[in-house]
Amino acid sequence: MTSKEIYQQILKKRSFLCVGLDPEISRLPDCLAGSDDPIFEFNRRIIDATHEYTVAYKPNFAFYESYGPAGMAALDKTVRYINRLDTNIFIIADAKRGDIGNTSKMYARAVFGEMPFDAVTVAPYMGEDSVTPFLSYPGRWAIILALTSNRGADDFQYHTDKGQRLFERVLTVSQRWGTTDNLMYVVGATRAEMLADIRRIVPDHFLLVPGVGAQGGSLEEVARYGMNSQCGLLVNSSRGIIYADSSENFDSVAGEKAREMQEEMALYLADRFKV
Amino acid sequence: MTSKEIYQQILKKRSFLCVGLDPEISRLPDCLAGSDDPIFEFNRRIIDATHEYTVAYKPNFAFYESYGPAGMAALDKTVRYINRLDTNIFIIADAKRGDIGNTSKMYARAVFGEMPFDAVTVAPYMGEDSVTPFLSYPGRWAIILALTSNRGADDFQYHTDKGQRLFERVLTVSQRWGTTDNLMYVVGATRAEMLADIRRIVPDHFLLVPGVGAQGGSLEEVARYGMNSQCGLLVNSSRGIIYADSSENFDSVAGEKAREMQEEMALYLADRFKV
Repeated sequence: MTSKEIYQQILKKRSFLCVGLDPEISRLPDCLAGSDDPIFEFNRRIIDATHEYTVAYKPNFAFYESYGPAGMAALDKTVRYINRLDTNIFIIADAKRGDIGNTSKMYARAVFGEMPFDAVTVAPYMGEDSVTPFLSYPGRWAIILALTSNRGADDFQYHTDKGQRLFERVLTVSQRWGTTDNLMYVVGATRAEMLADIRRIVPDHFLLVPGVGAQGGSLEEVARYGMNSQCGLLVNSSRGIIYADSSENFDSVAGEKAREMQEEMALYLADRFKV
Repeated sequence: MTSKEIYQQILKKRSFLCVGLDPEISRLPDCLAGSDDPIFEFNRRIIDATHEYTVAYKPNFAFYESYGPAGMAALDKTVRYINRLDTNIFIIADAKRGDIGNTSKMYARAVFGEMPFDAVTVAPYMGEDSVTPFLSYPGRWAIILALTSNRGADDFQYHTDKGQRLFERVLTVSQRWGTTDNLMYVVGATRAEMLADIRRIVPDHFLLVPGVGAQGGSLEEVARYGMNSQCGLLVNSSRGIIYADSSENFDSVAGEKAREMQEEMALYLADRFKV
């Protein structure tokens, strides 16, 4: 997908919501205990209930890998299910990959060749040749970690060389490697006040923003400081939606939570784009 | 394994060699074309031919993930094969993982719970909570990227705050999170001259050193600048050993290449430890 196509989906659904599909067996509703494939079944019901309100899904690979081959098979089924439902939904492999060039090439093949993802999250520590192999698949994206939402972000991301913090250097240097049609950045909602600084460096790139909800970030602030002329935001919520309820009706409650976020997003979009 | 147990294996085998198991279908010897599981078969024959000369193996996950579920099954079989052959061989999941705390916990479960790895490589960008979940499995290790062997290492790893380069900050800060019995660092052999600086910060930690061979690093320099009182080095070679030959005798040629490296290592060990 191009950035324009993502923007069009955002306007159409009046939403820039991304739902994180992070299934933990111990947190799944009891009603799924008898299922042959509880992880896929959980995802399928969450997707059915939320897809009307979302423009993107983001399965985090850790949750699938931790259940071995059965987990990875459930991931594969999940991605194909979303694709069959609506090819305009943007699907992000949240895998935080990155290795020397010839190895990153194999990771790119895994997420874009073996599996039909639209994008993959990438850790920037190893620099250019660790990222560029993900940019050679037409229509697919690399989403580089810039400023993350966790406590540990303070350890290295603010390391400052001649007034430039590391996350600012990552934004400045890496934007030369790709375009606004194949590079996005992760910026945590828990650092919403930094979005203004970040927009000065990457005014036109899409940002993937985790940390709203369970991690405490404010959607209103993210919209205020982060929106650009194509919206430029995908705001992720995982636990706040998928684990909102653990009864038999977990899916309709998840759908309600997604709709609430969509409705708030629609206000900010209306404000900015008069839609 | 403890660092002392690794050191004892090094003295016993007079080797600090780690063999990287990075199978690419397109580079496998033709004689494996008819095999039901060419990736595992390739690994098995490489392991049989080299284990006498090596103290560690390091499969890089990218190569397995790029072949989907069959690739991951071959990885799982490979690790269990090494374990059955000799439980004293140190097995490294070269996966360069790292995510927010509750997610890294799932990655740790994948490599230490689902699969019997001794260690996993970890990217430091997201800081403390992204690394510590890997340190809570007794006898298992996190190996943090400090200074990598690739060209892209120049992009961010030398970012300098008050005289401290980023890789030095990673070493300084992260060593507080664990011990010399559960934390190692990746330092590329292509930057061997930096090993003296690095040993001033982490005199006692083991270092995993890729980049000897195909990437151009010198084993002699690595030994000179990097060895400590427990050897403190695991030097990796992948392509220089596993793709040394593509005939039917690929395994015995790989064994020869491993033995050559072991013999050179034995000289440096003899020099230092009078063994």
